[in-house]
Formats: sequence, C-alpha cells, structure tokens
Amino acid sequence: MDSATCLAIARQAGVDCYALSFNYGQRHGAEIDAARAVAGSAGISAHRILKLGLGELGGSALTDYRMKIPESPTEGIPSTYVPARNTVFLAFALGWAEILDADEIYIGVNAIDYSGYPDCRPEYIAAFQSMADLATSRGIQGNPVLIQTPLIDLTKAEIIKLGVELGVDYALTVSCYQADEQGRACGVCDACRLRRKGFADAGQPDPTRYWNRKCK
Amino acid sequence: MDSATCLAIARQAGVDCYALSFNYGQRHGAEIDAARAVAGSAGISAHRILKLGLGELGGSALTDYRMKIPESPTEGIPSTYVPARNTVFLAFALGWAEILDADEIYIGVNAIDYSGYPDCRPEYIAAFQSMADLATSRGIQGNPVLIQTPLIDLTKAEIIKLGVELGVDYALTVSCYQADEQGRACGVCDACRLRRKGFADAGQPDPTRYWNRKCK
Repeated sequence: MDSATCLAIARQAGVDCYALSFNYGQRHGAEIDAARAVAGSAGISAHRILKLGLGELGGSALTDYRMKIPESPTEGIPSTYVPARNTVFLAFALGWAEILDADEIYIGVNAIDYSGYPDCRPEYIAAFQSMADLATSRGIQGNPVLIQTPLIDLTKAEIIKLGVELGVDYALTVSCYQADEQGRACGVCDACRLRRKGFADAGQPDPTRYWNRKCK
Repeated sequence: MDSATCLAIARQAGVDCYALSFNYGQRHGAEIDAARAVAGSAGISAHRILKLGLGELGGSALTDYRMKIPESPTEGIPSTYVPARNTVFLAFALGWAEILDADEIYIGVNAIDYSGYPDCRPEYIAAFQSMADLATSRGIQGNPVLIQTPLIDLTKAEIIKLGVELGVDYALTVSCYQADEQGRACGVCDACRLRRKGFADAGQPDPTRYWNRKCK
C-alpha cells in the first residue's frame, strides 16, 4: 500500500521510475506478486526483484516460520521487526541509484500509523541521508542521491485518500504479514489492522480480500 | 588480508566471533574459498556466507565481466568501486549483530593504502554509526552496536606486521581483483599492487601465489 502510493506520487511528479523489490525470505510470495502487478500497471522503466539472504539470519516473525505473528497490539518493538531491514533495502537502492545516476530514492516509510519499527522514523532517514552523502561517488562530488519519504507524516487514512486521488488500485496491493499465496489477508495482524482502520477512517471501500472468515 | 587481520585482532582481544562473508557476484569464487579457510583456522563460533544480488545491478568492474580491471593507477574513484558495497555489507552485519545481540561489528576498512573508495573513510564509518544508532532496537535503547575499524589508520605494511605478530597466515588470503579459481593473483591490479608493496615495506616474505608470469 505504502510503496504503491509512493510510486504513484513519483509518477505524478513526472519522475522516470525504476522499482526495486526484495525477496528476503518473507513468509509469502504474494507480496512479490503484488509488487509485480503494481509496477506493471504504473508505466515504469524497470522493475528488479533482488533475492537476499536476510531471512536466513532469522530473528523476526516475518522470516522465521516457527515464530507466531502477533494478532493483537503489543508493547514496544513487535516480533515482526526485521533487524536492519530498511537499512539493507536503502543500501541496495543507494547502490542502484548510483549505477543508474538516479537523483532520488523514494521509500514509503511512515511514522504515524506504523508498527513502531525504529527504521521508519524521520530521524533515522535523516541519518541514512548523511551517511549516503559520504558513502557514494555522487555524494562526495556534492550531488548526493536524495531520499524522499512523501508518506512519512501522513496517517494511513491520508495515504489512502491521496492514493485513491492518484488512481492507485489498492486491490493489487498486499499488506498482511501472513497473506496466503493468493494474496488474501488475515485481517488481524498489525499490518492488517492499520490498513483496515485506514480505509474506514478515509471513508473508502476496502478492496482487500481476506482468507479469515471473521473479516469477510 | 584486511578481514583476516581484523579477525585476528578481535580474537586476540578475546572476542567471541561470528564471521560474515558475501557472495555478491564478484568475478571469482577464490575470495569466498579463502574466507572459509581463514574462518576455519581462527576458531570462531560461526561463519555465514550470504548470496546477494548486488552484482546483478552492474556498474562495477568487479561484478561486470565486460569491464576491464585497471592494471595501473587511475585518477579518482576507480572502476572497481562497487556502489554502496560497504553500506550493503554493514547493513547485513548490523541486522545479524542485532539478532545475535553482538556488541560490535569489526570491518577491515583502511583509508591509507586503499583504492580511494568513499566508503572506506573514517567520516563514512562515523556516519554509518550514527545511522545505526537510530536504526536498531538496541540503538534506541541506548546500547548501540559499535562499528570497530582497527585498521583504518594503518598502512598496509603496518597491517601486515601486526597480522604476522598475531599469527595470521596470509597465504590463505586473496586480495586480487582477478584471482584465478585456485586463488592465484594477477600481481598488477590495484589490490595486488597495494599488497605487494605492503609485504616489501614490512620486510616480510610475500606468500602470495601469482598466475601472472611477470610477478612470479
């Protein structure tokens, strides 16, 4: 949902887009299928899907199938936190941006209706920017790649309203931490709760398909 | 050479070590074989080798076989620079450190006898540390993972002298950008030139095996 909205914002601004997805050992392939569908419908220049061994390192309910996905709100950082995930994602995006000579990296992080992951906050993004300015050939030449976070201050409802205005088809997107292979959602994990509430608050019909009978 | 010395320094300090290597599409597998041999001889707790799609993104003579490895010194950042490589490596190390609850990450970057890559400099490492402090669960709890760079201010000759004192077997290590499958070096690339000069300046016999007749 956030990535698809981000992409629509960049396209609306006339940006020539190269999309990057990661197969990092997350529980289901539906997220990657959804990324393909979203990228395919957005008229972009390229879409790469990188396979990473991040899940092999373990430590998160998103990649370790023996851990249970929390189905009610938790205190502190939840078990679905994947250590350093956004740092890994942004590092690859930074490398690809430098190779493409791209001016910007768009990332759909959001620090309002979010799961409390430390690497979604504005101060984290600012620190990544400072690091990127020193890490790259472009950066040290005074022409750094800029990290753009157009959703960071928006509520989920605001994100959905903006996306609907820009023509995003949220039926193509998958947010659920434990979607089935058809991309149908559980309706009760943290990601589903934020998404359902977002549609309700935005007064928009929720196109999400659920496998969980309680949510149909 | 630098990673092996770094590992010996950590072991000497009594650190319980977990080694991380990356198969990122570099030209030869000899580097990974060498990492296995070094890790195997160092008495460490674990050695993981992650396969990354970094090379698929192209943009470097180290991962794009159509580009030629420079065999004489070049101006500015050389074509062997892999965009954001150390950022990608450190990002994975940060994730694994958080999973292991490890206190430190050791990395053998060196900003004296080096190839001029921006992500080997002290100011880059300091910026990565600031970012890491905000990226992780440990960091925001005031107990950040510390990036250790024991080689950053040493010449190659100083690194070699220190490593020899600590018992590093440099015959196991591969520095060459275009080593053959047996780990034999070209002797003329940037990495080989720095390494050969290091042994000469340190007054140490060079155990490197060369495939290039000019260097035997």
